[in-house]
Amino acid sequence: MNKNSSNIMALAPNTPNKRETVCIFGTGDFGRALGHQMIQSGYPVVYGSRSTQISNLIPKDAEVLSHAEAAQKAAIIIIAIQRQHYNFLTPLAEILRGKVLVDISNNLKLNQYPESNAEYLAQLLPGSKVVKAFNTVSAWALQSGTLDASRQVFVCGDDVEAKQMVMNIVRALGLTPLDKGSLLAAQEIENFPLQLFPMWKFPIFLSLGLTTFFFLYCLALDVIYTYIYEKNNFSFFIAITIPNRVCPVMALILLALVYLPGIFAAIIQLYRGTKYRRFPDWLDKWMLCRKQLGLIALAFASLHVVFTLVAPLRAFVRWRIGKGIVSQALNNKTEPLDSTTAWISDSYLALGILGFFLFVLLGITSLPSVSNNVNWREFRFVQSKLGYLSLILCTAHTLVYGGKWFLSPSAYRWYLPNIYMLSLVVPCAVLVVKFVLIFPCVDKPLTQIRQGWERNPKYSE
Amino acid sequence: MNKNSSNIMALAPNTPNKRETVCIFGTGDFGRALGHQMIQSGYPVVYGSRSTQISNLIPKDAEVLSHAEAAQKAAIIIIAIQRQHYNFLTPLAEILRGKVLVDISNNLKLNQYPESNAEYLAQLLPGSKVVKAFNTVSAWALQSGTLDASRQVFVCGDDVEAKQMVMNIVRALGLTPLDKGSLLAAQEIENFPLQLFPMWKFPIFLSLGLTTFFFLYCLALDVIYTYIYEKNNFSFFIAITIPNRVCPVMALILLALVYLPGIFAAIIQLYRGTKYRRFPDWLDKWMLCRKQLGLIALAFASLHVVFTLVAPLRAFVRWRIGKGIVSQALNNKTEPLDSTTAWISDSYLALGILGFFLFVLLGITSLPSVSNNVNWREFRFVQSKLGYLSLILCTAHTLVYGGKWFLSPSAYRWYLPNIYMLSLVVPCAVLVVKFVLIFPCVDKPLTQIRQGWERNPKYSE
Amino acid sequence: MNKNSSNIMALAPNTPNKRETVCIFGTGDFGRALGHQMIQSGYPVVYGSRSTQISNLIPKDAEVLSHAEAAQKAAIIIIAIQRQHYNFLTPLAEILRGKVLVDISNNLKLNQYPESNAEYLAQLLPGSKVVKAFNTVSAWALQSGTLDASRQVFVCGDDVEAKQMVMNIVRALGLTPLDKGSLLAAQEIENFPLQLFPMWKFPIFLSLGLTTFFFLYCLALDVIYTYIYEKNNFSFFIAITIPNRVCPVMALILLALVYLPGIFAAIIQLYRGTKYRRFPDWLDKWMLCRKQLGLIALAFASLHVVFTLVAPLRAFVRWRIGKGIVSQALNNKTEPLDSTTAWISDSYLALGILGFFLFVLLGITSLPSVSNNVNWREFRFVQSKLGYLSLILCTAHTLVYGGKWFLSPSAYRWYLPNIYMLSLVVPCAVLVVKFVLIFPCVDKPLTQIRQGWERNPKYSE
Repeated sequence: MNKNSSNIMALAPNTPNKRETVCIFGTGDFGRALGHQMIQSGYPVVYGSRSTQISNLIPKDAEVLSHAEAAQKAAIIIIAIQRQHYNFLTPLAEILRGKVLVDISNNLKLNQYPESNAEYLAQLLPGSKVVKAFNTVSAWALQSGTLDASRQVFVCGDDVEAKQMVMNIVRALGLTPLDKGSLLAAQEIENFPLQLFPMWKFPIFLSLGLTTFFFLYCLALDVIYTYIYEKNNFSFFIAITIPNRVCPVMALILLALVYLPGIFAAIIQLYRGTKYRRFPDWLDKWMLCRKQLGLIALAFASLHVVFTLVAPLRAFVRWRIGKGIVSQALNNKTEPLDSTTAWISDSYLALGILGFFLFVLLGITSLPSVSNNVNWREFRFVQSKLGYLSLILCTAHTLVYGGKWFLSPSAYRWYLPNIYMLSLVVPCAVLVVKFVLIFPCVDKPLTQIRQGWERNPKYSE
Repeated sequence: MNKNSSNIMALAPNTPNKRETVCIFGTGDFGRALGHQMIQSGYPVVYGSRSTQISNLIPKDAEVLSHAEAAQKAAIIIIAIQRQHYNFLTPLAEILRGKVLVDISNNLKLNQYPESNAEYLAQLLPGSKVVKAFNTVSAWALQSGTLDASRQVFVCGDDVEAKQMVMNIVRALGLTPLDKGSLLAAQEIENFPLQLFPMWKFPIFLSLGLTTFFFLYCLALDVIYTYIYEKNNFSFFIAITIPNRVCPVMALILLALVYLPGIFAAIIQLYRGTKYRRFPDWLDKWMLCRKQLGLIALAFASLHVVFTLVAPLRAFVRWRIGKGIVSQALNNKTEPLDSTTAWISDSYLALGILGFFLFVLLGITSLPSVSNNVNWREFRFVQSKLGYLSLILCTAHTLVYGGKWFLSPSAYRWYLPNIYMLSLVVPCAVLVVKFVLIFPCVDKPLTQIRQGWERNPKYSE
Repeated sequence: MNKNSSNIMALAPNTPNKRETVCIFGTGDFGRALGHQMIQSGYPVVYGSRSTQISNLIPKDAEVLSHAEAAQKAAIIIIAIQRQHYNFLTPLAEILRGKVLVDISNNLKLNQYPESNAEYLAQLLPGSKVVKAFNTVSAWALQSGTLDASRQVFVCGDDVEAKQMVMNIVRALGLTPLDKGSLLAAQEIENFPLQLFPMWKFPIFLSLGLTTFFFLYCLALDVIYTYIYEKNNFSFFIAITIPNRVCPVMALILLALVYLPGIFAAIIQLYRGTKYRRFPDWLDKWMLCRKQLGLIALAFASLHVVFTLVAPLRAFVRWRIGKGIVSQALNNKTEPLDSTTAWISDSYLALGILGFFLFVLLGITSLPSVSNNVNWREFRFVQSKLGYLSLILCTAHTLVYGGKWFLSPSAYRWYLPNIYMLSLVVPCAVLVVKFVLIFPCVDKPLTQIRQGWERNPKYSE
């Protein structure tokens, strides 16, 4: 009962325990962990098992009976056995009629079976009320009490009362039930613990693809070109110099891609004159993964910051600076400070720092616990206003830094533009279109459309 | 019902659905989104609408009836129409008598009307039980299921049972109800989604004001003075050098301002000899925005760190270092290492790093999800003990760094003290008074007062 | 009632208030704060007090009666008095028979009394149903409404119905009840608010011990040895150079210690051929504090990063670099760039940056609000796969950086190995054994054992 279970007073007979008895079929890891936890929360627990010999792994306040006997003692039966053994339940159909069966099973692969385990159970035993629950919680998390991974238990089922009974048990165990609707949702719930960052897949593959492309592009222009035409072996650029060119480019492009779908949506709504038609599928999907795109952009930006700050520690940079100073000393003169160079150097650094600062702020507000504490208007203010400000600052940072190369022919090695120019295409396009969209003559109809106004209304009320 | 709504088995008639019918007046965005979500959670939904022609935007399992017919079918009626149309409900007063009306409306401006929408509704229909709820949730959040912004639903109302019914629906939708008391709280609840960081207003304006002052102060002393008397054009200091003087000053002052109200409170309690009298209003407000002040101070400190680390990349710094080395080379000698200079340089850097490290730790523990996981004693230990340690380290960092200027006359340009000296006034004052307060002869009576002891008790028991 | 309590309409008599009356014994800070909050949530509150004279600190909608009278009016009595006064309740035993007594008391020290206050209360009044609750919430948090510290209320008690009644009140106050089982758990609950980071104790002491050892080790080799044999006064190394040697060593060792217990567990399970026997106690404890070890390692790694980035600002580093350049200039030659040096320098920096990046990612996912939003598989993927990748990168970073010293005799001052070599022992051992464990011939039986297979099964089913 208690953590030091030496004391057995807790559930002594004189305790007027009013909680309904719960039956658990199966004495595997999860069945035992769940039973243990339920006894702690005051539920009498009965195990249904093939062998009624009591193992010392089973919580000692629990009874162990045959399946049929155990089922008769309780209104709720937790099916802690694997799907392939479900058919042995069919002979018990009569006993299980009207009872609440809780399917807690998980599969090994996404969509392993045509129908979900819970629906399969409901088909086998049409007289019982099947509820899907507990599959997102692991036996280990239940036992250790450290529910770091998740306290959420998704519940679904066709019978509302049965679902309510199960949700009460979930709450009593200190977990948070989340009603996902009818048993149709079981497939989704069973797939949930098998998913590996489904929302991140597209953003990550996109980033990997773009990163590879830009890396090879830089490799060609900075290492191979230099080696062929200038006979310099700059192969060590692979470690820091090239990553520090690819990272800011990726950060800027991905940040612009966060705001691009919003621009598309506005144009589509303006064109259609209504908000009541669905966006094309690709746009919907894109809008749903904006947060992930933004966070990956932030990761690239952070890497860029560290790669940049590390520069003075690099042997190459130290050698280059030393060379410059030595040549000044050998020529017996000190170069005067060029005020324009100082201005450019300081202002692109300052723009980058402020842009990154706002970007980190965006990242912090997208932490679930922070975003749960702000209201809708505040969330939009941070994510939209501050986000655009960050995009403007980061674009300006790149423009000031790389500006001098635009008109220099030496920047066009093999007639290819420098990577900086490539990185500026998307962000500049986004900023220009956004600038047009905030003109009153465009913004006013858009706001009306978003408040429900339709140019050609087709539906009554 | 389910996400792929092609399958219609979920709420088939044989499902013994026991949830009470809910009626929704109004078929706008929010009414539809809410109805859709309720059907998913097993509630039969009836729409009351002016036109009963079924639009294909309305969830297809919902009935659409006239207002009067729909209202008769349910005990709970959700009023998803705008306040200016509330008066059309008066003819229905008889039908709505005794029913629970849920006001979900929001205004466009803070305190737009003299009384809250919910109170206005209650006045129009005195026979109904009005409950305010759902106004903090957006239609978009309900539809998309990604409740990033907030899962909290504030509920208030004069009838406890009605409130309970509404809170059960809120829970069934997977949201978290928060009881805010009687209908008087409706005004506050309606203002909530319109607020834009109300707790941050004062700290942000204070920071902006101080930042502007210190920026102009630095501009005068570092750029204008140098230009007039030394004919040097250091205008590019505006980009990094001056921000990097203002940021640490702001961080230090704001951090001290976090601990100053606690000092005032202790002095007031000691003077009054009781804790049972309210603090002056300004002190109460100040104490409530300490967290915000601290986070802004952390932002300034972070900017200071990045601005400082970026120094070796600046053209100006590289030029200055190069000039020094070239002049050494031209004079044909190497300056020996001065151990004192090395000590001062290393120790102020180390003090700053440790102070900033503790400061970041404070920031992390003030994240809602972290602070929810520590107990009261742990929270106070971190925020008070570690906070003061951070303040001591940061003050020492500034003292060691700027110490040499205190006695140098060249630091007093235009007879004005250096910005470092200004920044040290508040933190040093806080630390000195705090040091006095922890003396046993002062600490003991203060602890007694805080445990409820009174020097001149006036109240019985 | 409401925040602006000038208006008294909220709980006017015509409001059909159905919530049960709650009685509070004691009018101290917590009793008053709790009463105030309950009235706001619609509970009629009666105070039981020695003196029935109404103080203006008591919420004005509450009645104040004698203890006996007040107790008769309610089914739930909150005992807001200190344990040493509990015995005055014994004369009221008859009146309190069958009633729910809520013990909210806290002690001043861990395990101050042999039995918990709640159990003591239950012994004094065996006819009443004692429930422990509310002790983790402070009066200040209740009053101010800013429940930053914690919204969780641990509840325990032997009577399930009584516990349910108390948990309903907890929920109505906007707090989250957590059922901790029978009254035996009261001791643990009462100790909870007195704990100061219990899970952190061992990791922090371990870190302090190791840090001291490595600091003295470095002090001896870098400062004292240099002073004795090379007559150089490098005492200022204490501020930055030595901390920046100790921090990475600590970070690497602690990170390896996070993964070492998992290795031990795998070996023990392989050896025993079953997972159904408990690990030795030290291993269990070690496994439970892995998160804390990892976070301390992250703190050391972050300090290492900042200490390293700050290097170019140090007077010592500037002097050393300047000396090198001046000597080049005086010798009238520029050293050519050594490509190998550039490769080593860049690659250990890049490895360190990537390792640190993954490490920070691990830290972010261990934030409660983030880890609550990922499923079990995702959590394990990040913590295990990314964690090992981070360990590999950090170990490689150290190997590339310190590699050149392994074979250099000058690195063995006083015949002692350099600190880098010491730091590599544990991580290399972990990585080698882990590499063996992922071989299919070892991994397959291990996976089977972890799925419940036993080499010598002893228990039925």
